[in-house]
Amino acid sequence: MKILALDSSGLVASVALVQDGVLLGEYTINHKKTHSQTLLPMLEQLKGMTELQLEEIDAIAVASGPGSFTGLRIGSATAKGLGLALDKPLVEVPTLEGLAYQFYGTDRLVCPLMDARRNQVYTGIYEFLRTREGCLEQQALVDQCAVDVKEIIERVCELCKDGREVIFLGDGVPVYEEILRREMKVPYVLAPAHKNRQSAAAVAALAEVYYQKGKTVSAAAHQPDYLRLSQAERERNEQQTSMARKEQENA
Amino acid sequence: MKILALDSSGLVASVALVQDGVLLGEYTINHKKTHSQTLLPMLEQLKGMTELQLEEIDAIAVASGPGSFTGLRIGSATAKGLGLALDKPLVEVPTLEGLAYQFYGTDRLVCPLMDARRNQVYTGIYEFLRTREGCLEQQALVDQCAVDVKEIIERVCELCKDGREVIFLGDGVPVYEEILRREMKVPYVLAPAHKNRQSAAAVAALAEVYYQKGKTVSAAAHQPDYLRLSQAERERNEQQTSMARKEQENA
Repeated sequence: MKILALDSSGLVASVALVQDGVLLGEYTINHKKTHSQTLLPMLEQLKGMTELQLEEIDAIAVASGPGSFTGLRIGSATAKGLGLALDKPLVEVPTLEGLAYQFYGTDRLVCPLMDARRNQVYTGIYEFLRTREGCLEQQALVDQCAVDVKEIIERVCELCKDGREVIFLGDGVPVYEEILRREMKVPYVLAPAHKNRQSAAAVAALAEVYYQKGKTVSAAAHQPDYLRLSQAERERNEQQTSMARKEQENA
Repeated sequence: MKILALDSSGLVASVALVQDGVLLGEYTINHKKTHSQTLLPMLEQLKGMTELQLEEIDAIAVASGPGSFTGLRIGSATAKGLGLALDKPLVEVPTLEGLAYQFYGTDRLVCPLMDARRNQVYTGIYEFLRTREGCLEQQALVDQCAVDVKEIIERVCELCKDGREVIFLGDGVPVYEEILRREMKVPYVLAPAHKNRQSAAAVAALAEVYYQKGKTVSAAAHQPDYLRLSQAERERNEQQTSMARKEQENA
């Protein structure tokens, strides 16, 4: 089974190819170029270096949100295009699950923090449970959500009351490090360089699990999960609410 | 601080660039092409995509062995060449330490297994200890060595008598999976696709720690650590021993 994975949910652009539990290649760039400039050339490079025939792919995995709206649209559009052209299913990997999966093997809780601006983070809380000899399964204690950073810190502290520790990762960590230091009442670990941002290899590895469970969607049906409204949508809604209020007042 | 890292110790060719605890890019290929065909073009690609000026690098990290003799020589020669040309120090990251560092954050023991043929593995046993808030340090319980696969399994079982578990990774896992299943008396976990082979990102992240501790060498002084003799050297030694014996007998 071959799975091609894309993650452009944040500043990182990342593509990876796995086959039957082995990574055949990964290309990840965390640089100021926009994903529309990087993602396809990186995919082309990966394809060449692994001598991949696109028809051999069984599914296309994509970090399906939340994240940067533009980034998610580029990732989803690319995945949909590939899926439609190749007639292959897509595997939607929620962004926070892909991030947390980098800590496969830990006994600690894993709490990815993506900066969502205005003191909000996209986050979730995950742990790894043994299923059978040799295998662990990632489970959500708190499903991915957009909340105030202090709210998720409170949940973490509650869940760690029994002495468990937690690992934080993601681009929200440098943004909220001061708040973490001040508000965390239990021991925590910050992820080092090789595990603190998006990685398509982790998305691909988790997609292998989902694919085997039949968790796929058609390319036509896929759409990113923004988790909250875009600024334009929020402004339109506010405008409509205020117009409706005025109309009521004038009625 | 910017560190460029190379790992060509096994079948995988991998290059990565980190800056102050953040991965700027990684390019990893696990395909049948030889490293002499892949490593430099990948480095060139990474350099272009991250707009890296090589002079900005503070150190060059290299997976310094053990591993494939040819692979190690290509990695070391490249790192030495870069170090000499740029007048920058090298950070030698023992291959097994780089492999294990992918499991930063685990409470389990980590035991990388690299197939060294004839039932031998390059291996070691590692754990992560808390140093201060937010940080873990990788420590070796068994330093990297070349031993019979059953010998390291015995050591692992001994160390896990108190209920600890262990994670196995590396290209030795598929080769010795049957022996693991038969001989392991304690629970274990096998690494999934995104963490079961060499990764220059892990080498780079560990090199950041070593660099800060002043563990560098000059490009001129660096040489790979093969951990055991090459086949040609073994055969020459055997020949010399047998010649010496014959001379003694004839004396």
